[in-house]
Order: sequence, then structure tokens, then C-alpha cells
Amino acid sequence: MPKVIITGGDGFCGWPTALHLSRRGYHVVLVDNLYRRKIDEELGVGSLTPITSIEERLQAWKDITGKDIPFYNIDLSTDYEAFFELVIREKPDAIIDFAKIRAAPYSMKTPQHKIETVRNNLGTCQTVLAAIVESGLDIHLVHLGTMGVYGYGSPAGSIPEGYLNVYVKPTTIDGQTSEELLPWKILYPASPGSVYHLTKCQEALMFQFYNKVNQVRITDLHQGVVWGTNTEETAMDERLVNRFDYDGDYGTVLNRFLMQAAYDFPLTIYGTGGQKRAFIHIQDTVRCIEIALRDAPEKGTGVKIFNQVTESHRVSDLAQMISSLTGVPIQLIPNPRVEAAENELIVQNTQFLERGLQPTKLYDGLLVEVCEIARRYKQRVVQDSILPKTKWRKELPSGEGVLLENTYGTKVSV
Amino acid sequence: MPKVIITGGDGFCGWPTALHLSRRGYHVVLVDNLYRRKIDEELGVGSLTPITSIEERLQAWKDITGKDIPFYNIDLSTDYEAFFELVIREKPDAIIDFAKIRAAPYSMKTPQHKIETVRNNLGTCQTVLAAIVESGLDIHLVHLGTMGVYGYGSPAGSIPEGYLNVYVKPTTIDGQTSEELLPWKILYPASPGSVYHLTKCQEALMFQFYNKVNQVRITDLHQGVVWGTNTEETAMDERLVNRFDYDGDYGTVLNRFLMQAAYDFPLTIYGTGGQKRAFIHIQDTVRCIEIALRDAPEKGTGVKIFNQVTESHRVSDLAQMISSLTGVPIQLIPNPRVEAAENELIVQNTQFLERGLQPTKLYDGLLVEVCEIARRYKQRVVQDSILPKTKWRKELPSGEGVLLENTYGTKVSV
Repeated sequence: MPKVIITGGDGFCGWPTALHLSRRGYHVVLVDNLYRRKIDEELGVGSLTPITSIEERLQAWKDITGKDIPFYNIDLSTDYEAFFELVIREKPDAIIDFAKIRAAPYSMKTPQHKIETVRNNLGTCQTVLAAIVESGLDIHLVHLGTMGVYGYGSPAGSIPEGYLNVYVKPTTIDGQTSEELLPWKILYPASPGSVYHLTKCQEALMFQFYNKVNQVRITDLHQGVVWGTNTEETAMDERLVNRFDYDGDYGTVLNRFLMQAAYDFPLTIYGTGGQKRAFIHIQDTVRCIEIALRDAPEKGTGVKIFNQVTESHRVSDLAQMISSLTGVPIQLIPNPRVEAAENELIVQNTQFLERGLQPTKLYDGLLVEVCEIARRYKQRVVQDSILPKTKWRKELPSGEGVLLENTYGTKVSV
Repeated sequence: MPKVIITGGDGFCGWPTALHLSRRGYHVVLVDNLYRRKIDEELGVGSLTPITSIEERLQAWKDITGKDIPFYNIDLSTDYEAFFELVIREKPDAIIDFAKIRAAPYSMKTPQHKIETVRNNLGTCQTVLAAIVESGLDIHLVHLGTMGVYGYGSPAGSIPEGYLNVYVKPTTIDGQTSEELLPWKILYPASPGSVYHLTKCQEALMFQFYNKVNQVRITDLHQGVVWGTNTEETAMDERLVNRFDYDGDYGTVLNRFLMQAAYDFPLTIYGTGGQKRAFIHIQDTVRCIEIALRDAPEKGTGVKIFNQVTESHRVSDLAQMISSLTGVPIQLIPNPRVEAAENELIVQNTQFLERGLQPTKLYDGLLVEVCEIARRYKQRVVQDSILPKTKWRKELPSGEGVLLENTYGTKVSV
């Protein structure tokens, strides 16, 4: 079976991917600098689920399945040598790169958070690519990108998978335009909405470059908002449980709603809730990555890009759905982000469906399962973390001054 | 008069810009970490011209003009706080950002050089932008970009200034395309040819982002290959002399040819010499920057992009011109770069011409002046540095094994 190095293998997507592939016979090697756990300490709010240490996780996996997953604590953004030596020694068939500081709000908190997000995310990407080239090995790089690279509201209609066919009217040196239309297949024009998403767009340029100059085989997965917590593997034992983030910085919208519902707090919608977003369940994330591994691009072909999403919903519709499922009300709060109040979103995702992905849909009952996770661990919630603390511009509102009250009379504000 | 902070103000473009603006009454503040001088030591080859220390340069400027230029040694890629404090204290009207590790070959030398170029160039850019936003001041950022962001060989015909008008046929969710053509003005699709150029494309995305989210006023200057050494100001005193790089890593093609001619070595063309490039004289660089400063974009408008070039030439034509001027022969050597053997290049540059730029053309006699610089300092040449040492892929040839012989029988190889 193939060997894969998973960077960021202790994180929300990396950890379940590691177990999913290990269970299916892949030789998995984990790399992580455990930075996400340090951010828990920085923010004073941890995973809702009681995740165990990386050592305990790996021991539990060995106890249950008999499989060893070696772990290396390497900071890819500062220690190229250590990573390069690992690559040379392990000779992996593929590297799956999750080693990013994620979350749009976290990346927008302060100048230092902006700088650190850029430093880490571009640094890790460059280290991985430079090491692949220097090794001389034909390693397939699978990278977790984001739907956020596309932005919202273009004349292109539905969002294609990575590339856009456009037409240009060639111009002369005087700027005079001919009436002829020439086709050009380009990388979809980037329009990131946060520094975090910006780094993903910048990584996408790196992939194009290393693919063109050094013919590195690369698959970039533009993932939607992930919801859910556990996969088949992380549910096998409580020691294997995956992260669940619900706070204003790291909690994605759906998981935040579910936690708020579990706590009988109103579901907080930023602005009008007219924002439409694409979603995927964490179980489908790991399946998609396995599909991408199996379906690696040929040497000498371009960067392969998949849209890793299964359905799109308007934020207000999601809130309505959870509200009617749980009985908790909805509360509109000022939007701390710079984004369009309303947008349409139609995402092409045929590539994964053609390759056999059976999507886990929101209405299929798993939503209820996730509500259960939120209820089960709700005594672990840090209440003050529910509302947004980060704003995109100084003059914008954040959650400050907003007061939420649940049915027991418990109040929350920033 | 306006106040400007010039980052990278000790470098090849930064230094003459500082003097040009200082002489015209701008209040200039210099920032540099002197990293370019450390690279001289790393490569074992310095400027052909005997540049003096930054302290001596600034003292000389004061002796001659009576003008003070304060200097701060700050590493922008690691010391946000120091730069932010400077911005708050000085309250500049504009920041001109030259603080980049430049040169395509240098950025491709080793994995460490790739990583360091990305770390520095994205880090400095992010520091400057984050500091502008945090300061709350309406500071105009002028950035030196590169023609290298465009790549060579698109169906667009001549290269527009930064943005491209394209047309899309909107698609449905099934990927079905309508026949309607909708216009879309996009950032010209990036196609960098080296890690150095890649960072410029990544910076361009940062500018779009900070302009969109925080309305930072930004001008990005896509500069061609710079030739020449001195400007009116740097020629005022030998202690003010500007850098002249001629080595395989830092010497741009024209300056390398001139130095080879001065030394009676054959002019080395990579590949066929069919590559066409856009050029600008260093005197015009500083004039363009002054124009860009005066013509700052309004708040709330997009990033302003100028093509900072004055003429385009094929490398083989340049070599022919210098060969007939000096009598030295031409020698073809294998191309160590990954690039098209031949390309067309027509660059739109009307914006600067409309704003009064009077281009300094190659044929106007200044070429002879530059030959004189090369001849005058030729005893300072490190001969082994003339040929390229850096190659874009391991399997490509570099200057290795190539033997050059001048008319005196002196031989050079890598």
C-alpha cells in the first residue's frame, strides 16, 4: 500500500484523515507542530470535545487496530532540514498538506495574527514543495484549499473546479482592441475574504509555479465549510474523538449554531444571513482525500483542482433548519466581517461525484447526531467565546455589547 | 512637502529613489536591514562600483545638499513592532516598499534560498500593510512590482497595465455554458518564471485584498529589467555611487553584457536569445516613482497598476547592438532557466508617458556611459561570477563546463 506523510496530522481535518487512511492500509506518517493546541491556550477556549494528547491518540489507535502511526513534531515553517530528511528517509508516495493556521476570524484578529498566518502558511507550503523538488522523488502533493479562494459574485455563474474558460479580445500596443475572441483557460480569479483565505490563494500560485517549472504532481482541494465532528474511525473510541470548535474565531457557522442550540442560546446570524456558503461533512472530507490520492494527476499535466463540497445553503436557512429542529430562536447581530450581505452560490462538484463520492447530507439525520455531540459536552463550553470578537475593520461592530439570553436566563456578552 | 518612508532604501532602486526625492524637497526616511550587502558576502561578489556604507552615503548627501535623511536598520520581515512605531511617529504621507530579496536566479539557487525569498518578501509586504491599517493613517503605498508577473505568451496580445478585460460565458450547475458573453475586468493572470517573481504575484494578491477590505491606497509598479547605474543624484559624488551587479545571480542581462564587453569577454546568451524583455533605465525608475507618488489613487478606488518600462528588445538584438558597439563577439550557452526559447512582448506603457515621462532610450548614448562605468571599475570584477551558477531544474545545464576566453587569453569557467 502507498505511504503518505500527513502534515498538520493532529488537526481537525488531518487527524480523521490519518485514521481513515491507516484503517484502509495506507502507511501513514504524521507531522505536526501542535500549534493548534497552543492557540487553544492563547484563546482560552478549547475543543468542545475532550481531545486527548497526540501520544494518547496514537496509542489508542494502536490498541484498537494494531496499527502504528509514527509521529514527528516538526515546525515546517522554520525547519526545512528536518522535514527534508524525513522525506528522504520515508520516501512517501504522497504528502497531504494540512499544516496551516486556519480560520478567517483568527487571521484577522490583530496585525500579529495576520503576519503569523502568512508566515506559517506560505512557509509550510514552500517547505513542502522545495523538499519534494530537492528529493528528486515523484511525490504527489495533496493540499487542502478552500472555496474561499473564489470569492462571491462573479459573472461566471456557477463556480467551476479551479479553472475558468475566458475569452479575450487581443489588443495592440496602442491599447486598440480587435473584435476577435480568443479562448484562454485561466486559474479562477482569486478574491479572498480574509488573510487566511488570502494565503490559500497565494499557495495556489505556488502550486501553479512548481507544477510548471518542476512538474510536481499536485491536487488542490477547494473545500467548503466543514461540519460534523467524528468519522467512523474517530468514533471508535472516546480517546480518538475529533476536535469540535464553536467559538467566534474557530467555530464554523454550522457547528456554532449547533452548540448554541444545545445551550438554548439564540442562533446568532451576522448581518442578514443572506450569505450562501458551500458545506461538506468531515466524513466526506476524508473520503474525498482518499479519492484524490487514488486519482493522482499524471506527470507533466497541470495542477488538478477539485471543489470539495456537497451542498450549498444560505446561512439564514441553516439557522431556520436548526431552530425548527431544536426550538431555539434566531437573533441577528451586526456583521463584523467585510462581505456582501447577500450572495448567490452555485458550485460545480461533479468530479468527486463521478469518482464515487456518496455525500452525507445535512438532512440525513447526521445533523441530529451532531446536536447530540453539542449537548453531551456542553458543560465544557466557555460561554464568553460564543460571540465574535474579531472584526475586519476597526470601525465595524463585533459581538461587543450584544447580549444573548438563554431560556434559563443565562446571559452572554463579549 | 510630503513625507515618505522608503523601505529597502539602501538598495539598487531604493537608494537613487531616496536621493531623487530628497533633492526635490520630499522628507525622506530610510529603512533597510542591509541584507543585500550580506548577500554580497554570501556570494563572494560585490557591486562593480565601490559603494560606500549607508552611513557614509548619508553623510555625503548631507555634505553636498545639506539635507538629512534619517536611517533605521529594521528587518521588516521579523520586526513589525519597530516598523509600526516608526510609522506612528513619522506619520508619512506615503511608504515606498523596495524591501525585497530580488533576482530570479538568486531565488532559485537552493531550497533555502526559495524559502528565504518567500519568507522575506511576503513578510515585509504583510508588515507594511498591517502597519498602515493599524495606524489608522491614510498612507499611500507605492510598491515596486515586476513585469515578470505577466509571464510570456498569452492570447491577450499586448500586455495591459495590470488588469485584463475578459469575457465569460456563464455556466449552470451542470457545467452547461450559455452563449451570452459577460465582461469581467480581472487582475492579469499571473505566470511567474521564478520564486522571486512568484512572490511579486503573491504580493499583488495582498494588495487587492487590503485595498478591498481596508481601502488602503496602493500603486503597484510593474517594472521591466533595469539597466544603468547612476542617476543625476548618485553621480554627484563618488561616495553616492549606486550598485552595479554583473554576476550570474544578480546582474540583469544588459548590465552583464556591458561588463562582459568591458572585459573583452564574449557576450553570453542563454539559449537562442529569442527571449524578448522590457527595459527601463534607473534614471527613469526614480522619475516614475515620483510620478506615482504625485498621482496617488483616491480612497475607495482600486489598486493602481502602471507598467514601468520604456522599451522592449530581444536579448539577441541587445547582444548584437553591444557587440557592434564594442567589437566583442557573442557566445551562445545552454539556458539554465525554464522559459520559452522565443517570445513576443508588446507592453502597454501609456500611463507614465501621459503623465510626462521622457524615456531614456538605449540608443541615446547612455549605453556608452554605462560601458564607461563597466570599463572604469573592471579591475574589481570577480571573473568566476560572470557565468550563471543557478539552474531552474537539477537536470538543466548551468554555466558549468562553459569556457569563455577574452582577447587577452584570460579564461573563465564556473
